[in-house]
Amino acid sequence: MPVLVMKFGGTSVATPDRIKRAAKRVGVEVAKGYDVIVIVSAMSGETNKLVGYVEETSPLFDAREYDAVVSSGENVTAGLMALTLQEMDIPARSWQGWQVPVMTTSAHSSARIEDIPPDNITARFAQGMRVAVVAGFQGISPEGRITTLGRGGSDTTAVAFAAAFGAERCDIYTDVDGVYTTDPRICDKARKLDRIAFEEMLELASLGAKVLQTRSVELAMRYNVKLRVLSSFEEQSDEAGTLVCDEEEIMESNVVSGVAYSRDEAKMTLLSVADRPGIASIIFGALSDAGVNVDMIVQNISEEGRTDMTFSLPTNQVARAERAMNDIRGKDLNFAELVTDDNVCKVSVVGIGMRSQSGVAAKMFKVLSDEGINIRVITTSEIKISVLIDRKYMELAVQALHDAFELEKAA
Amino acid sequence: MPVLVMKFGGTSVATPDRIKRAAKRVGVEVAKGYDVIVIVSAMSGETNKLVGYVEETSPLFDAREYDAVVSSGENVTAGLMALTLQEMDIPARSWQGWQVPVMTTSAHSSARIEDIPPDNITARFAQGMRVAVVAGFQGISPEGRITTLGRGGSDTTAVAFAAAFGAERCDIYTDVDGVYTTDPRICDKARKLDRIAFEEMLELASLGAKVLQTRSVELAMRYNVKLRVLSSFEEQSDEAGTLVCDEEEIMESNVVSGVAYSRDEAKMTLLSVADRPGIASIIFGALSDAGVNVDMIVQNISEEGRTDMTFSLPTNQVARAERAMNDIRGKDLNFAELVTDDNVCKVSVVGIGMRSQSGVAAKMFKVLSDEGINIRVITTSEIKISVLIDRKYMELAVQALHDAFELEKAA
Repeated sequence: MPVLVMKFGGTSVATPDRIKRAAKRVGVEVAKGYDVIVIVSAMSGETNKLVGYVEETSPLFDAREYDAVVSSGENVTAGLMALTLQEMDIPARSWQGWQVPVMTTSAHSSARIEDIPPDNITARFAQGMRVAVVAGFQGISPEGRITTLGRGGSDTTAVAFAAAFGAERCDIYTDVDGVYTTDPRICDKARKLDRIAFEEMLELASLGAKVLQTRSVELAMRYNVKLRVLSSFEEQSDEAGTLVCDEEEIMESNVVSGVAYSRDEAKMTLLSVADRPGIASIIFGALSDAGVNVDMIVQNISEEGRTDMTFSLPTNQVARAERAMNDIRGKDLNFAELVTDDNVCKVSVVGIGMRSQSGVAAKMFKVLSDEGINIRVITTSEIKISVLIDRKYMELAVQALHDAFELEKAA
Repeated sequence: MPVLVMKFGGTSVATPDRIKRAAKRVGVEVAKGYDVIVIVSAMSGETNKLVGYVEETSPLFDAREYDAVVSSGENVTAGLMALTLQEMDIPARSWQGWQVPVMTTSAHSSARIEDIPPDNITARFAQGMRVAVVAGFQGISPEGRITTLGRGGSDTTAVAFAAAFGAERCDIYTDVDGVYTTDPRICDKARKLDRIAFEEMLELASLGAKVLQTRSVELAMRYNVKLRVLSSFEEQSDEAGTLVCDEEEIMESNVVSGVAYSRDEAKMTLLSVADRPGIASIIFGALSDAGVNVDMIVQNISEEGRTDMTFSLPTNQVARAERAMNDIRGKDLNFAELVTDDNVCKVSVVGIGMRSQSGVAAKMFKVLSDEGINIRVITTSEIKISVLIDRKYMELAVQALHDAFELEKAA
């Protein structure tokens, strides 16, 4: 029988009643003839409670013990989900990560899945079991210790199972009903997308549309796992939610698929830096060592051997970045001045259609200009154009771009 | 290095602060040179919460899933205890049941430990680890599923580890400071015993002095594991608490070690039953099928082929027992009348000294008679004499017997 993977997040399994609702969704798919692998998160709040215990006990904790503690929340929901399905007369059992086994690296608290031998679960499906409920977020290291995949790791577990079992699809049930053209809270014309390409989803995920964990999308792209995001709080049809898939499966699409934003950005500029090889590596090496997540980088045209270096970073890392730059000033690095603007935001348009269509950047800049919005920094990739602008214009920019690219209309 | 097993119950690990206090006790033993195996329960309240989830989800639950869910509480405390010990610079790690492995039968939710191969933990001790923290109450079945040992199973886990590792002693830390000659709440002369024999402890445990789980005492007796009960809420010396041990290690002891009681007893009498072979098996088979826990049984002298059969049972099972007797009346069983007295209690004196000393029963009966207390039923074993009396005399009987056998004085 074809295999379907269904993943339920913490809010979807927060109480025995919600587990029952999720189990009913599973029952619908079983009735269609699927053998189903259900991946569950911990009840919402549980993992935070356990992390709190660990941090209270040991601020610099042994990650192996951290993993042993925080993985227990998923074991509870896996057992309860199996019991709920049994109550519905659906043959089901729970599996903890080590029982499958979900084999991971030894990088505790951020382990990567290396292999999921399907033999045990496949054998049980052959004997008539219809649902394997698997505790998400966890695995077992080569040393036989329990590992976890890091926050949001249950999405990755789900995609890895879909790849290992050649599943027809991997449905991610969450508390939103899909992926939108932009954030409905700041643009009331935002439209739910029926389909979106992996590459677009990756750009949107890393830009702050936290619907799916980035690693799970990367994995889905690599193994071409069809991923569907949908709500566990609504009645669902076969066409509900948003399908994240290979671009070849998207017949028609707008040039631009979505407008993303990131509110709390800062811009730093080092004025008059010596323009010589290796200078970028000194600056960004020092920032990386200081734990600063640099995003956009722009180097201005140099004059007489001097250049200006501009980069963006989260506002709460500004102090750290300034300290790192002043620490190397006069030693490895000379610059005239360090100018910080922590009052900017990032707005991006994303779309695989840009690859074949020119003029998107020009149109974006004109839209912003028409609204009187000054652009501070521009970066572009194959399928994305991002600008830094003053934070006060953020909502205006998002709405204007959404209108200009007609995102309220389907392709 | 010699091995010591230390077990901490739910109230002793109820919060990260209490875990810290327990860990300090472990540190004291490590400093003495012991390699320590710590067995932990779940934080108090956690197991009840998980059992509640299971019962809400599935009234007739699959015991395999029940075990997968309820065992998770111990995993949390095991990890937190290991982290706490590491913070004290004591090399420690946690082990879940399947990691050791604690091999059990497949009788889910009431499994029995079959074997604990010591190799893994012994190898780690040899490498310098000083404390192995093991999640109590759980194991793994031959099929690779998680099992639990039933309520109070962590005591049994502790004794089984002490036997498997040839531990010098098994210390059970709890919320009382030892075993008493009787309940201090009803007799202010009750004295803590320094030592008590396994057999006596078994009689006291089954009589309702719920300090230790009965199975753990049986196991300790079989493998001659020295068991010490002591409080985790007091500063402890080497001589603290009560040592439960082989009677040969008790040099001097009173003839009677303790007075036990059980408050909510009922007495039922079947009047004029045919006195023929097989009749007891019919009566007590029917009661057992009805889930009635019969305790004392007395058959009166028979006259003309008829006899009276009397037995005791918990008061909350009277209705069930009456229904069972009336169901077989006139079919498998004939009796004149069923008389119930649900206003009695059981008082017992226990002591291995009785074996070699006669007159204990006579003295007991005289004490009760002097107080004007009428005895309804008597049963005796090698080391115990129990009587059923009216419930209103319970405290009086316990205090009078405690005085008469001079239990306030050490031997």
